[in-house]
Amino acid sequence: MKFSRNTFTYDGSFEMRRGGVLESPSVVYETWGELSADADNAVLIFTGLSPSAHVTSAPEDPAPGWWEEMVGPSRPIDTRRYFVICMNSLGSCFGSTGPASVSPVTGEPYGLGFPVLALEDIAEMGHQVLKHIGIKRVAAVVGPSMGGMTAQAYAAMYPGTYERLLLISTAARALPFAIALRSMQRELIRRDPDWNQGDYPPGAGPITGMRMARKLGMMTYRSAAEWDQRFGRERIPSERKSGDGFAMDFEVESYLDAHANKFTGQFDPNCYLYLSRASDLFDIAEHGGSVEAGLGRIDADKTMVIGVPTDLLFPVHQQREIADALKSQGCDVDYVELDSINGHDSFLVDMDRFRPPIKRFFDE
Amino acid sequence: MKFSRNTFTYDGSFEMRRGGVLESPSVVYETWGELSADADNAVLIFTGLSPSAHVTSAPEDPAPGWWEEMVGPSRPIDTRRYFVICMNSLGSCFGSTGPASVSPVTGEPYGLGFPVLALEDIAEMGHQVLKHIGIKRVAAVVGPSMGGMTAQAYAAMYPGTYERLLLISTAARALPFAIALRSMQRELIRRDPDWNQGDYPPGAGPITGMRMARKLGMMTYRSAAEWDQRFGRERIPSERKSGDGFAMDFEVESYLDAHANKFTGQFDPNCYLYLSRASDLFDIAEHGGSVEAGLGRIDADKTMVIGVPTDLLFPVHQQREIADALKSQGCDVDYVELDSINGHDSFLVDMDRFRPPIKRFFDE
Repeated sequence: MKFSRNTFTYDGSFEMRRGGVLESPSVVYETWGELSADADNAVLIFTGLSPSAHVTSAPEDPAPGWWEEMVGPSRPIDTRRYFVICMNSLGSCFGSTGPASVSPVTGEPYGLGFPVLALEDIAEMGHQVLKHIGIKRVAAVVGPSMGGMTAQAYAAMYPGTYERLLLISTAARALPFAIALRSMQRELIRRDPDWNQGDYPPGAGPITGMRMARKLGMMTYRSAAEWDQRFGRERIPSERKSGDGFAMDFEVESYLDAHANKFTGQFDPNCYLYLSRASDLFDIAEHGGSVEAGLGRIDADKTMVIGVPTDLLFPVHQQREIADALKSQGCDVDYVELDSINGHDSFLVDMDRFRPPIKRFFDE
Repeated sequence: MKFSRNTFTYDGSFEMRRGGVLESPSVVYETWGELSADADNAVLIFTGLSPSAHVTSAPEDPAPGWWEEMVGPSRPIDTRRYFVICMNSLGSCFGSTGPASVSPVTGEPYGLGFPVLALEDIAEMGHQVLKHIGIKRVAAVVGPSMGGMTAQAYAAMYPGTYERLLLISTAARALPFAIALRSMQRELIRRDPDWNQGDYPPGAGPITGMRMARKLGMMTYRSAAEWDQRFGRERIPSERKSGDGFAMDFEVESYLDAHANKFTGQFDPNCYLYLSRASDLFDIAEHGGSVEAGLGRIDADKTMVIGVPTDLLFPVHQQREIADALKSQGCDVDYVELDSINGHDSFLVDMDRFRPPIKRFFDE
């Protein structure tokens, strides 16, 4: 399997959807497999908020990808057949231009000088990458979570440039519970004195704020049902306990703490703030005046929409809304509700349930 | 209607369930209505985590109570018929002995010197109050939320002292999602430098931590469905906006902020920590070895259990668990699921749905 890791740099001033300009921004993208002679077998994957472009491993980069079991030879998104492209989002911090990057204008990190980010900006960079590679029409655009919102933006902005669309655990727009959650995560970061209005040394910054934001995130990425099964009321062994009477007591507390530790340092806090806010601001209704009109711009030959009823962050009625709107406009939609107990993260965790419909979608 | 506000002081050393002793602790309780000659018409109400003993208004204290529409003359818990008693929980800060009180031993506020609080300690003080008034058997014990866990503890500890039991939006024990949430709320308070290991001036302390804990609480006290209806994607008018690009943008953010401001200063942070942890530690299984055995100690003539499917914090399967366990032991149980969209707080908000079953329970 061929693999490549590339940097695409936009030539000139990139105008951001909500105002402001980036001079010659770059994005990192990786590819797996081979582009067919007709350039008709490409699959473009937009990521959720935190992943890099490394969706799956390759001999040249054996580190497991964030969707390792879904993408690769003989896997549901089969890299023997498809040329898979995954981009690190504009605004992120794994090689692409974002608030943590050095501005070519000032010679300093952008920090809060980075313009307001929209998911449409990420979608546009995806489109630029395809143009750069020489792909006029992809076989499929794929997006889970925030990536699914970016994929909808892409589909509404560039009709005719994709054959199929796969939207997973996503929404046509952010609703108040998700907005409140992300707002609180951002507040946790911004209230950390080490955030310092976004001005902190690279790799440092609001560690505590990021840990707390991640803990809060984990509470909505998984589900109560999963935790009941995994942890119940199991206690931390006394030798692992420390501190005052209010320190951790239950295994679920220890689990959240471990996840928070793992995340911190990997992700730049300012990038997190920008991507988080971009998710809140996204509303497909901006592409035509209403959710229906925005989704009406999508012209995929076939769309699959997958949802999970235990998802708190992107509740299943939001996937139904997308599927129903597309169906009512005569689109060919396969709506799939999966009985996973892993909540929003099910697409990353419950592979036994997610593999079959996605394999079916790509085998057809 | 007769009304009284009283302080009961326990005579001597009060042994706490999880170790430690309080010297002559007091609780504040209020009463409405008149005790019958046979002393058989009393209703004892245990509160959720944050309310005072003031469950409803009275001419002598016209401030609206925390369950104003439920308790009073001609209301579902009718004070013309019943003698209603509501106690401010031991460990709280509205007149009862708690971490914010001055210890008679040291002459200083207890702070973290307060022993670990159990809901059973609150139940025992309730029992002492009844003994003090001269009531051997109440007509009903009532508890919503944390108060419902206290009511179960009371019922398991003092069989034969109550006729009926009304449990609302509560659980036989805390499960991991609720534990994780409360743990995070406590961490937000404890990480505030102004908490200072529980040593802060009265009325001051970790304001920011309390605000953040309250915001997080509100996210699980209400429901996503309610917020979709109330706020949708409504924005804050530009004249009310302030600060950097990450300040509040959506009405739901402003709503949470207003709630956080209202709560802060009302409730003592250390008391909050103790009551929050007591909720995590509660497990009816401690009263007999299993949830079933613990609930098996309850000998009410009639029990009503009310749940709301939109409740994230005390999910409806936990109310079903209580009802099923009691039924399987031959108890007379009326299990009521109410289609409220206000989540855990429905019993405080959706009075039109809650009044009828509670009226039925008390009219019978």
